[in-house]
Amino acid sequence: MATYLAAAPGRAVLVDNTSDPALAGAYPTFLRQGVSVVTPNKKGFSSDLALWKDIFAAAAQGDALVYHESTVGAGLPVISTLRDLVATGDQVTRIEGVFSGTLSFLFNTFAPVSSTTPAAPWSQVVAQAKDLGYTEPDPRDDLNGMDVARKLTILARIAGLEVAAPDAFPIESLIPAELAGLPSTADGITQFMARLPEFDGQMAAIKEEAARQGKVVRYVGSIDVATQQVRVGLQQFAQDSAIAGLKGSDNIISFYTQRYGSNPLIVQGAGAGGDVTAMGVTADLLKVVQRLR
Amino acid sequence: MATYLAAAPGRAVLVDNTSDPALAGAYPTFLRQGVSVVTPNKKGFSSDLALWKDIFAAAAQGDALVYHESTVGAGLPVISTLRDLVATGDQVTRIEGVFSGTLSFLFNTFAPVSSTTPAAPWSQVVAQAKDLGYTEPDPRDDLNGMDVARKLTILARIAGLEVAAPDAFPIESLIPAELAGLPSTADGITQFMARLPEFDGQMAAIKEEAARQGKVVRYVGSIDVATQQVRVGLQQFAQDSAIAGLKGSDNIISFYTQRYGSNPLIVQGAGAGGDVTAMGVTADLLKVVQRLR
Repeated sequence: MATYLAAAPGRAVLVDNTSDPALAGAYPTFLRQGVSVVTPNKKGFSSDLALWKDIFAAAAQGDALVYHESTVGAGLPVISTLRDLVATGDQVTRIEGVFSGTLSFLFNTFAPVSSTTPAAPWSQVVAQAKDLGYTEPDPRDDLNGMDVARKLTILARIAGLEVAAPDAFPIESLIPAELAGLPSTADGITQFMARLPEFDGQMAAIKEEAARQGKVVRYVGSIDVATQQVRVGLQQFAQDSAIAGLKGSDNIISFYTQRYGSNPLIVQGAGAGGDVTAMGVTADLLKVVQRLR
Repeated sequence: MATYLAAAPGRAVLVDNTSDPALAGAYPTFLRQGVSVVTPNKKGFSSDLALWKDIFAAAAQGDALVYHESTVGAGLPVISTLRDLVATGDQVTRIEGVFSGTLSFLFNTFAPVSSTTPAAPWSQVVAQAKDLGYTEPDPRDDLNGMDVARKLTILARIAGLEVAAPDAFPIESLIPAELAGLPSTADGITQFMARLPEFDGQMAAIKEEAARQGKVVRYVGSIDVATQQVRVGLQQFAQDSAIAGLKGSDNIISFYTQRYGSNPLIVQGAGAGGDVTAMGVTADLLKVVQRLR
């Protein structure tokens, strides 16, 4: 396919809207043949560090471009902002935020700030999110934290950390250990959802522990550039913090840098969904076309 | 100068770090001669609508580029985000926020959320901001609202509104009418600062009126695209709102669009200062150089 595209009369761009790791593994081949790549597919940028390096080495060798804004925060200006900070010589010290629309929705619903009516148990909130199509077909693909870990891997690498793989740092999974072994089949998913209520007490305890301190619990990712620490998991936040106040399935990403000082540069908004992801991909494609002219 | 730059052996870029309206008026001449323009100078984009149209017509005719990210929010990704939204076919319905680092600092200090100690009177806060170098040499250049009005003019035009000039819509000036006539000389500025305390009661009343409703007062700009209404001035905000919770001299810009629904895309952070403005200009310059290759 790379050879076919490279033989096109004009300049060719591969827009990869899959989440296929095999296609992502071939990006260096496309790029070396002069085919640019635009994609929301996280696999190429968040798997082995060797592939990451090969992708950007291939792009640097030739005149093909690679843009992947929608791999983090869909259409939100996250990748481009971080690249601008780095390219202009700012020193990024810390990045933290809520990077999953699904997990944002789950916790904003399960542990809302200043709720008057008691929220539903955890398993019911997960079931509701699944019915609304907010989760992957198998909710465990959201609850295992790997999607957030992949996004953090990408940002950490842009910030200069050589993260070996998306499982090279601590990731707190929200899948009860007892249910992790259920198969990923339709039957396994049904069993998972049926047994999840058994663990509502555990999540309620986590929520109540935070409430006792006047806080709420959220699922966040953070990168400390100086200490090279990346982690994904539950954290408590003050009720009046920006992270606690998120609505719906919004993402929030805070960039702490030398130039911005103690108040971070913040990007916030819907970080998932077809429309906004398509915006990110299309905006990237327009930029590639402008540069290839 | 345009002819000189156009005769350069390579492609030339004019980086205009002045705030000179005459130089801004010549952008079309530079662009028509193939010289690209990168600038934080608001004058070219926020003065007569005819100049705005001429600048972009000149850029469209040739192969020179014009980038002006730092005209709004310094290094924050405001212009680029709005252009991406528009270019990818989203419908921007409303833009609102705090667009002045100076006015952000003044109101965050004068009417902080949940303050334990009473804040200083308005005139003292203005004097403090002036001493810290947060205001223009003549603070009236911040207090008259024109800087915010120029930024709103630029955003409104990108969003598709044909705003004739930065004074073509309501702008609430914070300069007492009695002091507006003082000359812009060093002596005039000294007189202005000396007489400002006479009007502390007026500002205190505005602050207390908001407090009676459990709110705080902030100086904001808003663009309603559907009704084509642009306005700049004081508004009351709930204490737990993002605008009320701003810190220091941070800006916050919210984009309400069809795709993003009821939760806007938000960009927040330092929107003024040499370092972050230089970042915006440098990032623009890098993009122009990439596209001109």
